[in-house]
Amino acid sequence: MTPVPPTRRYDYVTDGLEIYRRSFGTIRDEADLRDFAPDLVTVATRIIHGAGDVDIVSALAATHDLVATARGALEAGAPIFTDSHMLASGVTRRRLPADNDVICTLREESVPELARQWGTTRAAAAVSLWGPRLEGAVVAIGNAPTALFHLLELILDGGPRPAAIVGMPVGFIGSAESKVALAEHRLPDGSQIPWLVVHGRRGGSAMAASALNALANESELA
Amino acid sequence: MTPVPPTRRYDYVTDGLEIYRRSFGTIRDEADLRDFAPDLVTVATRIIHGAGDVDIVSALAATHDLVATARGALEAGAPIFTDSHMLASGVTRRRLPADNDVICTLREESVPELARQWGTTRAAAAVSLWGPRLEGAVVAIGNAPTALFHLLELILDGGPRPAAIVGMPVGFIGSAESKVALAEHRLPDGSQIPWLVVHGRRGGSAMAASALNALANESELA
Repeated sequence: MTPVPPTRRYDYVTDGLEIYRRSFGTIRDEADLRDFAPDLVTVATRIIHGAGDVDIVSALAATHDLVATARGALEAGAPIFTDSHMLASGVTRRRLPADNDVICTLREESVPELARQWGTTRAAAAVSLWGPRLEGAVVAIGNAPTALFHLLELILDGGPRPAAIVGMPVGFIGSAESKVALAEHRLPDGSQIPWLVVHGRRGGSAMAASALNALANESELA
Repeated sequence: MTPVPPTRRYDYVTDGLEIYRRSFGTIRDEADLRDFAPDLVTVATRIIHGAGDVDIVSALAATHDLVATARGALEAGAPIFTDSHMLASGVTRRRLPADNDVICTLREESVPELARQWGTTRAAAAVSLWGPRLEGAVVAIGNAPTALFHLLELILDGGPRPAAIVGMPVGFIGSAESKVALAEHRLPDGSQIPWLVVHGRRGGSAMAASALNALANESELA
């Protein structure tokens, strides 16, 4: 049976590109992005778009080299690692510059037993399965603070170093602290792995996916 | 190679159940949920948890019969329809009472052409593919206002009626209006399909998934 469109009863914009244009226009009118470097403005704009909230910008922070480094890594083919399948699902594949792999190991068979043995969450244990491909990858944490803490600990132990870390775990226990830990994290030589965070309790898969989609491609549309 | 856990360097809670307990304890301490019926309190609590923000409760509204109707439908085996794969991915399958189908039609082959012919978004066109299984289903819209408007128009045209609608599209163009339209939507006999909304611009897949996970199962944990 061929579906037919319903009778229009409401007055709303139906053109997807026009919706994007007006949305980003509204964000530019309302959000105070004067303190952000131009390349971070496009990322901040898309995070605001995903959050539906211009005020989220007050919690947003990043290193000066975050956008260039993350985008360069993705253009060179780096994989993206995420802490949740929901976040992986939110990455718009057609925006990826090199058909990059988007990897979540949360459902790997060994994860529940490792989490039990180590006395940690499955989200944290799953990070230990990222292995050598983590070197130079782009990481996004949108759910579990424990996954972000675990990642920082692996790096401090001398493990593979991602090119950039999007730290946006959400919640009431450990979330804010994990993002402070990321912002203060230093390698032995005193340098930082480029990072982007939404400080405080807010964050989540939707905002983290918006960040990844902006880092993958500077286009505002689609 | 068997992974080894990293050296603990930060002080954080690693017990998943303890994280849940403390999170919901914090929400109960901070959120003002006195105006909500007991069955809606558990849903509101989980939406706050997913949003990382107790203030979201001021935007939350629902019909009195929303929780009982949606949960009853799911227990009876009703499918869940979503407007995005990200939202579908956020439904915790083990919480579903009847191994319910979770369906998103956004990537069906006919969607781009229908959207073009009808002059609407793919998210809206995809709703027209839900077909007769929409009758008695639980619907959650976490992304596209156009999908919610389109659904309401299909119902007003005499199409299948879902058992309950979670209306949480996000964004700056049409989002707030689509949720007002849902809250004011009436069937020819004056009755309403039970609904739950986060009014205003906020919403999104994460909050909508939290709502579905709470409607599926009243347990706070996992």
